[in-house]
Amino acid sequence: LDVSKVAVVGSGLIGRAWAISFARTGHQVSLWSPTPGRCDEALRYVEQLLPDLAAHDLLNGLSAAEVRSNMQACASLNDAVSSADHVQENAPENVVTKRQLFAELDALAPPHAVLASSTSDIPASLFTEDLAGRARCVVAHPLNPPYLMPAVEVVPSLWTSPATLARTAEFMRSVGQSPIVMQREDMGFVTIRLQGALMQEAFRIVDSGLASADDVDRAIRDGLALRWSVIGPFETIDLNSPNGVREYVARYQGLYDRLARVHNQVVDWSGPVLEKVAASRRAALPLEQISQRQLWRDRQMMAVAASRHKTA
Amino acid sequence: LDVSKVAVVGSGLIGRAWAISFARTGHQVSLWSPTPGRCDEALRYVEQLLPDLAAHDLLNGLSAAEVRSNMQACASLNDAVSSADHVQENAPENVVTKRQLFAELDALAPPHAVLASSTSDIPASLFTEDLAGRARCVVAHPLNPPYLMPAVEVVPSLWTSPATLARTAEFMRSVGQSPIVMQREDMGFVTIRLQGALMQEAFRIVDSGLASADDVDRAIRDGLALRWSVIGPFETIDLNSPNGVREYVARYQGLYDRLARVHNQVVDWSGPVLEKVAASRRAALPLEQISQRQLWRDRQMMAVAASRHKTA
Repeated sequence: LDVSKVAVVGSGLIGRAWAISFARTGHQVSLWSPTPGRCDEALRYVEQLLPDLAAHDLLNGLSAAEVRSNMQACASLNDAVSSADHVQENAPENVVTKRQLFAELDALAPPHAVLASSTSDIPASLFTEDLAGRARCVVAHPLNPPYLMPAVEVVPSLWTSPATLARTAEFMRSVGQSPIVMQREDMGFVTIRLQGALMQEAFRIVDSGLASADDVDRAIRDGLALRWSVIGPFETIDLNSPNGVREYVARYQGLYDRLARVHNQVVDWSGPVLEKVAASRRAALPLEQISQRQLWRDRQMMAVAASRHKTA
Repeated sequence: LDVSKVAVVGSGLIGRAWAISFARTGHQVSLWSPTPGRCDEALRYVEQLLPDLAAHDLLNGLSAAEVRSNMQACASLNDAVSSADHVQENAPENVVTKRQLFAELDALAPPHAVLASSTSDIPASLFTEDLAGRARCVVAHPLNPPYLMPAVEVVPSLWTSPATLARTAEFMRSVGQSPIVMQREDMGFVTIRLQGALMQEAFRIVDSGLASADDVDRAIRDGLALRWSVIGPFETIDLNSPNGVREYVARYQGLYDRLARVHNQVVDWSGPVLEKVAASRRAALPLEQISQRQLWRDRQMMAVAASRHKTA
């Protein structure tokens, strides 16, 4: 794949994380942000993080210094994108902002460059319709941070070309991500829908008083997600019967069908259940310790990524 | 907790796995099966497995020989349970079988022993109603295998005493499991409901042609479940906002509410979608390689458990 230069447009939480994925696989990464000082802030954050990633062997064989030297902050959007082969946009989730930004990107980036948005819930059709280059615009939505979680969702707009979709998936594979390609635009991306379905059942269980938020979290963390992180849910049921998924469905679909029909009310997450969830969470973790726990989470995720890397 | 002797009643897939959890934490485990030769078969399987578990440091500091010496096959049900402090039943998922077996267990086990069933979907009220000791009967449903997945669901019947519930949760904690305590009997246990909700959305996505079963599996395996295996879904959203879960809900409940109302049809898992899922699975794994892949899964799960053990 002929991608060597990548532009990261918007250098907040998502942008700076993308920069690591791209730079550790040898790409020249140009960062830009409309906010003065934001790129330097992002690069300082990255510099602090790289030694940890190196220690976990998560820099693809490069040193922290080598990865850092693949990144540079740009003074203008034009500097960042004018010679880019792939542009990754990470602006706030606002359709007007993205519409303006994509008009600039389409004017400034070379014709062969893909323009990808990291949006988690705005269909690209809503902010690319009027562009001459709308066929090269696409969504590439990462789970955060992408350098620890390979899944990235590639979603076409109504006018994204098949070549753009294929090229984006191939580029993501080439930087070590695991692209999930949606076949068309629909209401809600796949990862968001799957997360929403699980969360809806979780809120339903807590709302009905059947189990606490803490118990639900442990059921997932110490159980279901352990297996799902090794094999996905379809492979799980396929391996749970000597004759595979057909046998599993024949045996259990009645059970799951009944459950889906009985437990089907949509819960108001901000209703009485929120008092239970918030009380459970604050008992587990005082609000002032959230940022400390985020660091703990990131270290744990790094250990998980390192362990997967070793056993892969 | 005054538990030293544990009876494992039924020595198939689940029973033999439970025996490892109990024996590696120093308990004397008595196995029994109504099928001649089944206990010896279970013990041979365990003997083959223990060196692997020892190599991953998953035997709680004991040697494989020490763990094995904590297990014995019993010639009669009475031998297995007459001096047990905790009885773990693992018979086939058949309410008549369980009703007969629990009558025997209640007659033979010492009055202080808890009688726990590993059932994944039969409420204990359906097979313990007529017993003198029905207050000491409870469900303790493991994910399989429990020696690699800590989650175990503790579910009361209509007449399970609070003391039985508390004692069972405490015993499970003492053998290194992570008990999820359901507050009452309801249709479907918590882990089954959470799995069902995720699977329902997964089948819905494949059925609508939005993504393939393989893509859905990767979205979970290489994304959502990686984070969920470190922090559960409630902690995930709590840590995703500087001000915790209340802020997250205020910001995103509209999105998830819309998704839940739009994507709400129950899918016939055995309908046309099954052809897609089966085709995707068989392309990934020929039917004749299922048992080989099960071994691969078990080794991967062992590596995950070992890695969690180290970073805990």
